Amino acid sequence: MTRPLTLHPDRLLPADPDTRAIARALYREVASLPIISPHGHTDPEWFATDAPFGNAAELLLHPDHYVFRMLYSQGVSLDALGIGNPEADPRESWRLFASRYHLFRGTPSRMWLDWVFSAAFGLEVQLSAETSDRYYDHITAALATDAFRPRALFERYNIEVIATTESPLDDLRHHKAIRQSGWRGRVITAYRPDPVVDPEFEGFRDNLRTLSDMTGEDCFAWQGYLAAHRKRRAFFASMGATSTDHGHPSSLTADLSPGEAEALFRKVSAGDAATPGDAELFRAQMLTEMAGMSVEDGLVMQIHPGSFRNHNPWLFAHYGRDKGADIPMRTGYVKELRPLLARYGNDPRLSLIVFTLDETSYARELAPLAGHYPALKLGPAWWFHDSPEGMRRFREQVTETAGFYNGVGFNDDTRAFLSIPARHDVARRIDCGFLARLVAENRMEEWEAAELAADLSCHLAKKAYKL
Amino acid sequence: MTRPLTLHPDRLLPADPDTRAIARALYREVASLPIISPHGHTDPEWFATDAPFGNAAELLLHPDHYVFRMLYSQGVSLDALGIGNPEADPRESWRLFASRYHLFRGTPSRMWLDWVFSAAFGLEVQLSAETSDRYYDHITAALATDAFRPRALFERYNIEVIATTESPLDDLRHHKAIRQSGWRGRVITAYRPDPVVDPEFEGFRDNLRTLSDMTGEDCFAWQGYLAAHRKRRAFFASMGATSTDHGHPSSLTADLSPGEAEALFRKVSAGDAATPGDAELFRAQMLTEMAGMSVEDGLVMQIHPGSFRNHNPWLFAHYGRDKGADIPMRTGYVKELRPLLARYGNDPRLSLIVFTLDETSYARELAPLAGHYPALKLGPAWWFHDSPEGMRRFREQVTETAGFYNGVGFNDDTRAFLSIPARHDVARRIDCGFLARLVAENRMEEWEAAELAADLSCHLAKKAYKL
Amino acid sequence: MTRPLTLHPDRLLPADPDTRAIARALYREVASLPIISPHGHTDPEWFATDAPFGNAAELLLHPDHYVFRMLYSQGVSLDALGIGNPEADPRESWRLFASRYHLFRGTPSRMWLDWVFSAAFGLEVQLSAETSDRYYDHITAALATDAFRPRALFERYNIEVIATTESPLDDLRHHKAIRQSGWRGRVITAYRPDPVVDPEFEGFRDNLRTLSDMTGEDCFAWQGYLAAHRKRRAFFASMGATSTDHGHPSSLTADLSPGEAEALFRKVSAGDAATPGDAELFRAQMLTEMAGMSVEDGLVMQIHPGSFRNHNPWLFAHYGRDKGADIPMRTGYVKELRPLLARYGNDPRLSLIVFTLDETSYARELAPLAGHYPALKLGPAWWFHDSPEGMRRFREQVTETAGFYNGVGFNDDTRAFLSIPARHDVARRIDCGFLARLVAENRMEEWEAAELAADLSCHLAKKAYKL
Repeated sequence: MTRPLTLHPDRLLPADPDTRAIARALYREVASLPIISPHGHTDPEWFATDAPFGNAAELLLHPDHYVFRMLYSQGVSLDALGIGNPEADPRESWRLFASRYHLFRGTPSRMWLDWVFSAAFGLEVQLSAETSDRYYDHITAALATDAFRPRALFERYNIEVIATTESPLDDLRHHKAIRQSGWRGRVITAYRPDPVVDPEFEGFRDNLRTLSDMTGEDCFAWQGYLAAHRKRRAFFASMGATSTDHGHPSSLTADLSPGEAEALFRKVSAGDAATPGDAELFRAQMLTEMAGMSVEDGLVMQIHPGSFRNHNPWLFAHYGRDKGADIPMRTGYVKELRPLLARYGNDPRLSLIVFTLDETSYARELAPLAGHYPALKLGPAWWFHDSPEGMRRFREQVTETAGFYNGVGFNDDTRAFLSIPARHDVARRIDCGFLARLVAENRMEEWEAAELAADLSCHLAKKAYKL
Repeated sequence: MTRPLTLHPDRLLPADPDTRAIARALYREVASLPIISPHGHTDPEWFATDAPFGNAAELLLHPDHYVFRMLYSQGVSLDALGIGNPEADPRESWRLFASRYHLFRGTPSRMWLDWVFSAAFGLEVQLSAETSDRYYDHITAALATDAFRPRALFERYNIEVIATTESPLDDLRHHKAIRQSGWRGRVITAYRPDPVVDPEFEGFRDNLRTLSDMTGEDCFAWQGYLAAHRKRRAFFASMGATSTDHGHPSSLTADLSPGEAEALFRKVSAGDAATPGDAELFRAQMLTEMAGMSVEDGLVMQIHPGSFRNHNPWLFAHYGRDKGADIPMRTGYVKELRPLLARYGNDPRLSLIVFTLDETSYARELAPLAGHYPALKLGPAWWFHDSPEGMRRFREQVTETAGFYNGVGFNDDTRAFLSIPARHDVARRIDCGFLARLVAENRMEEWEAAELAADLSCHLAKKAYKL
Repeated sequence: MTRPLTLHPDRLLPADPDTRAIARALYREVASLPIISPHGHTDPEWFATDAPFGNAAELLLHPDHYVFRMLYSQGVSLDALGIGNPEADPRESWRLFASRYHLFRGTPSRMWLDWVFSAAFGLEVQLSAETSDRYYDHITAALATDAFRPRALFERYNIEVIATTESPLDDLRHHKAIRQSGWRGRVITAYRPDPVVDPEFEGFRDNLRTLSDMTGEDCFAWQGYLAAHRKRRAFFASMGATSTDHGHPSSLTADLSPGEAEALFRKVSAGDAATPGDAELFRAQMLTEMAGMSVEDGLVMQIHPGSFRNHNPWLFAHYGRDKGADIPMRTGYVKELRPLLARYGNDPRLSLIVFTLDETSYARELAPLAGHYPALKLGPAWWFHDSPEGMRRFREQVTETAGFYNGVGFNDDTRAFLSIPARHDVARRIDCGFLARLVAENRMEEWEAAELAADLSCHLAKKAYKL
């Protein structure tokens, strides 16, 4: 049985009629505000070459770890889905997905995908085993048209600015090409130095060698290494970057003396001698170093801590990184961030945005910290928590202590380009619903909620990320 | 003043009228589905002998640790309640309970008990000091009738299958008697080897001796010990068991080399020399061994970790185990389960169901793990969280990342036989309410919610536990 | 644009009309019950001298760390606000606050302050840059009138009893003066011995010296030290105290042998030799000692653990303690409280009230502990969690396991005297809303909710604190 696909205009708004009416009025005013995407993982090559995307499976299934991790958890092999397996027939992979679309009930992926199917592709029936081929053909055909090329989508999606994320080892050729192309879409980079900051990153020493070559600095000497960072940061800033980003297993920071830092660097850059504790301490020290550089050069600093990467060793051995096997860990912030905050937390020149995968820290640690330190802001609900219930918990647990203005609006943080408007839309609806409840409970006036709805949808992100 | 006792037909459904109407429609379709009870602690002797239950206090007060722990917390002595004190007059014990029934306001015990009083016993006034004797007499008289004998209740309650939990040292005579009786009620066992797996269990070495005698294996030698487990598991399976269960202080698993495992076993089985760390490591290793056996014999594996048993030493010394003094502890899963998952987590032959008493792990750890590993499923909200708010938090925190289909439906996990339908009913109502909110917020369609309501009430449990 | 300031009669009640109607009926019956304030930080000198308060900034801005921490987090210097800076013009400080009043949207401070402005001072426009001076003048003028002197406010506010908090080193002269004045307001003290119990407290050894002088005991000898506590506790009790209070970094307790305790005391009281671990263990031991004294003298014992004090070293160096830089930490209770509970937890003479800043412990640890141990009760949602959402989470996460009667009603715990009625009012509204939901969901009857609303508003606090 084929069922119609429609997007309800009130989806995600609260069920109570009075509250919904308020939410609807708030949402109406922000629904079509431009998209500010200050942090994410789209590929700049798309916008540089403006080449058409491939087929449905390649665009919507293969890169979306939310989707294939769920299928994998229910016994579908990654091979059959075409992950790391070019032999797989993409139409067959799509069928595996389509016939299990019920698995996504109650998940944000379902809402994002339905929006892509309906609003982006104009599909009018639901995805299922029966409609799988119809979907595959329709989407694949659409992708061959000019309307679905990256720049056209960027414009259609009303994206004011989007940030990608690159390593210091990236030459930013695509960003250069975008600038030189004359196209006016604003695509900027962000500085993510994990491959040259984390001694446990694959190929760390090779990466230092490459960094030396790129910068003309000796990146096996502490001062040369720091100078190389400064150079690459300046280069990234010249290519539009307004921020850095740091993905660490924990939020630990350190403030070693120069001599201690240099000795530690010598150890970790030499390779063999360093212990996991040395690696952790070095990452910790580098966060404080990076904060110091941000004070100098004005780049906003982001920390994304707390993911246990590649938890599944068999999967990692066969399919590599980013295959849905990263698992959040308990993450503390109070003692961990203290060295950095003690050094720079009162400095108005620093803007430090901290994220978490550990919701227990929202009310207990992060909101109290952000509600005190001038330098500290809270990133929005992240990754597994970028979801209706996750965003509600964020607002409910953060707002009373940190207020709204120590937050930074929404991040889509995605490589799933097609769904970016859907993700911002979910956030705007949930925020409007939260604000509407405050109004309905007479805790806030409607004009204030309207101001806040626009702030949360756009203005806070522009301000926090200096866009 | 005597007050009428009624069970409101809409109890536990959401207050918002539109949402309630949806919930009511969903609930109507699942309210009378049969009860699948894949994990619990009823006594197989009840069904073997079909002897009548005793008096009200003996049936409803003495075995229910939720009830007497609350009374104890408010200054009522266990002696006076007849716990471990055969001298106590059960009618007087019941009066102590009845006159303090207000203490249970807002607790699930209150809802379960009111259902038992009203639906099972047909009482029409509320329990209070005034009605205490009326209750005592009415219940005690009813229990003497055939309609309240265990098998009659089993049938009246529409129980399709119920699992009890036994130690490997149990000869399963009651399960044999049930089978031989010709009665058609399906009562199965489950393999809970804690007394011979946990070196800190009372009488561990004696238990190993008994296990040796029962199996003809040398359970003080590593290979003999493992062989004994295999034999007992096979025997339990022959008596209907489809699952094992493991109650450990933590969820730690280990994957030692055979030599290391053998050496560790030698140490813990020798008694004196083993440290608490050895005991913990041995339990950890045994979870992985048990997972390996499950891969071989197909028994579903359950882990119930995280309870600090017998927290109150005075109480333990005077009244023994299971007297309401077990307290949940912070419990991690990411690093802890990794050895087992690295070894067997991708194996489709393993079905591992993990529970928690630490709700902080739902969204942070358990849902991401279950939403990735094929072998892993999440048990429902457990023990103190088997409650309306607890079940809501479970759905809200788990579903967006793990979906519904990486869960296993409901467990009543109780020895309070009389209240089993009430417990399933609470779960069904809460699930229908949760689904109704998703429908009311236009996040799911009503036909999908209806499918899920039946899945959550019955089908997922049957499938996950291979019933 | 100037906007009217009004307090909506239904503020904070649930939005659903049926639930709100129930909540409104419940609230109506408790709204004007007297205020029981069993724990807080008002200054007894106010009531002793009955001197008028100063200007608006001095009364409402300088002492309120919720307010100035938020302003500080958004870049306003404490100097400019007049914190630790007598040079600052209070009118200018007030303007800084007024022009940033939007920062408090969604916070409890906003609700408390609006109540103070409207209900206490009769202001009819909202606070903003435009109305700043009008506010400053109006409030400052009102404070000069008799109606705003401390005793008049105490009476107008219908405070039945208020407890302040003093160190053993305090001579309680203000409490004496209050008693001798003939004024009938009931202002009592509470015994907070942190300065002589915590070896890491500033001036610990000096404090011991002072305590020796005050008591005639040798407070550098273990028995003398304990005797001094007994004497001061008795003196505090004679001045009305019914409770003690203990603010520790963790909830750790210990139960050392007398010899071990004495040796530890010798070490920490000697100063230099003691490690942080010694200090922690000594605080732990002292909680158990204090519990033992409470068994003797009947003083109710409170523990307020889990705050990382003075997290911001620069701020501490420049402005001192209590400047909004205290940050909650992860706090465990299961293993930590066990030594004390094993010793005294079954003793009906002890009444121990435990608080937390770590909400993860509500459902996992504190509710199960309080739902078992006769001596243990749970304090209400504290500090950053003393807020609408925080109180809701407390009720939702605690009630099902601990019930309502293992709680102690509400504490305002504030030095912001003007807002005390607002704080109690918020708690009563939230509790009525929570109870109304239980009624609307047919989990409780309305007459039970009405009984509970009064218990939570007044009776539980009076009983738990022996007032």
